Order: sequence, then structure tokens, then C-alpha cells
Amino acid sequence: MTAPLLTEIDHVAIAVQDLDSAIAYYGETFGATVAHRERIDSDGVEEALLKVADSYIQLLTPTDEDSPVAKYLEKKGEGIHHVGYRVDDCAAALQSVKDHGGQVIDVVPRRGSRGTTVAFVHPRGAFGTLIELVEE
Amino acid sequence: MTAPLLTEIDHVAIAVQDLDSAIAYYGETFGATVAHRERIDSDGVEEALLKVADSYIQLLTPTDEDSPVAKYLEKKGEGIHHVGYRVDDCAAALQSVKDHGGQVIDVVPRRGSRGTTVAFVHPRGAFGTLIELVEE
Repeated sequence: MTAPLLTEIDHVAIAVQDLDSAIAYYGETFGATVAHRERIDSDGVEEALLKVADSYIQLLTPTDEDSPVAKYLEKKGEGIHHVGYRVDDCAAALQSVKDHGGQVIDVVPRRGSRGTTVAFVHPRGAFGTLIELVEE
Repeated sequence: MTAPLLTEIDHVAIAVQDLDSAIAYYGETFGATVAHRERIDSDGVEEALLKVADSYIQLLTPTDEDSPVAKYLEKKGEGIHHVGYRVDDCAAALQSVKDHGGQVIDVVPRRGSRGTTVAFVHPRGAFGTLIELVEE
């Protein structure tokens, strides 16, 4: 049995067409406010993080029409894009995915937003779920 | 401004074809274990909850081919089905959705799994995201 590697749901990522409209929705309806906002040019996205306890709602919108999130929106429309799990050691968690026959998108961990270290696991082999491993 | 209503990401729900295979994946790859398992005949699903801090990964599989989850799997395949947010008062949170022009699936809160009180918000008007409000 593998030792527990997931320490928190870091975030639920939601792909949206208009970041400000989505921020307004969560604020007006649920009183959720923006804790962090960042444009990540390497991923072609801008994100807004709304804090919920120790987790985040991550609203994502493309800044580049060739980005994966832009293609996702074009193909599937707005909605839940991926789930991020917090881990103590991103490299170790990624290795466990590889060791157990999972497919990875990031072969090695890379820099994420707000100074995190992240790696994405491919939905193929993960029951259709795009999983991000997030080390703070 | 609305007071904060979401106190925790209660769960991320993942629709799968085979519950035991999905449980095995999360156990073997990430060391996540089943905290609760329940068949909810009124929703035509069986769920397994894997605890991650104060949240859950909710693996969902249909027990009835006419259930919404069965139709989801048929149309979209396996993947993230909805997100559940914990709230102190499900009726009050649902009222806030209505007050701010959101569309609801459950007009009034109803019984959820593990003795919770829940209500679903329609993805139309919620940026494509099926949202469940969960009062423990």
C-alpha cells in the first residue's frame, strides 16, 4: 500500500471565457473573494484564486488562443477543467504515478503559479480526470 | 457583498465506470483510502469517498442506466462530474443562488449521502459547473 500522498484538495480549476464575470458570480452569489490573481504566460492563462478554507477555486481563462485552456473551451465549453491535489513532494508523487503505470504530461515537476512546483497527470489512465500535483 | 457561504471544498466528484477499479487506482497510486461507501438508490449511484484532509474525492458510478451519472458517462465519458462545497446552511446558500439569478436543480434542499443535506445548482448560469451545496 502506498503511503498517503495527497494532503489537501489544493484547487478545483474552472475554465471560463471571462475571468471578471466569473469572479463577480462567485463573489455575489457565494461571498468568495480573490486571494491571488496571476497571468501565467507559459501556460497561456490568467488565473484568479478564491480561497475556501485551505483550498482554492481556481478560475482560469486563456490569454493565448493556442493554449490548452483555449482549446478546452472551444471543444467542451466552460466547466471544471482539472483538480489540483497538494502534496509534500511533487517529484515523489509524480514518480508514484509513473511507477503505477499512469501517464504523465509533465515528465518532471515544473514551476506553477504563486511559486508552487507542479506536475500534471494525463486523464488517460486516471479515469478521465486531469490531475495536477501541487507542492507549495 | 455577500458574506462568505462556502466553508470547505466538500468533495470533487468523479464519474467512473467501475468503482472498484477507481478505488484501486487512488489507493495504489496516491495511498488514498475509502472513508465511506454508500449506494444512493434515489440518485441511481454508488459512491466511495476517499478522505483528503477535510475534503473528499467522491468516486461515483451509476447503479441505474437512466440515472444522470449514467447519462453523463454515456455522453462525456469518465471524468470530473461536479464539485461540492460545504456550507453552514444549505437552504440559505440555495436562496442566495436564487436571489442572484442562478438556476437551481433542487428547488429545496434534500437528503444527500452520509446524512447530509444537499442541493444542486445548475451549470447553466454557473459557468458550466455543476455545483452541489452540502450541509453536514
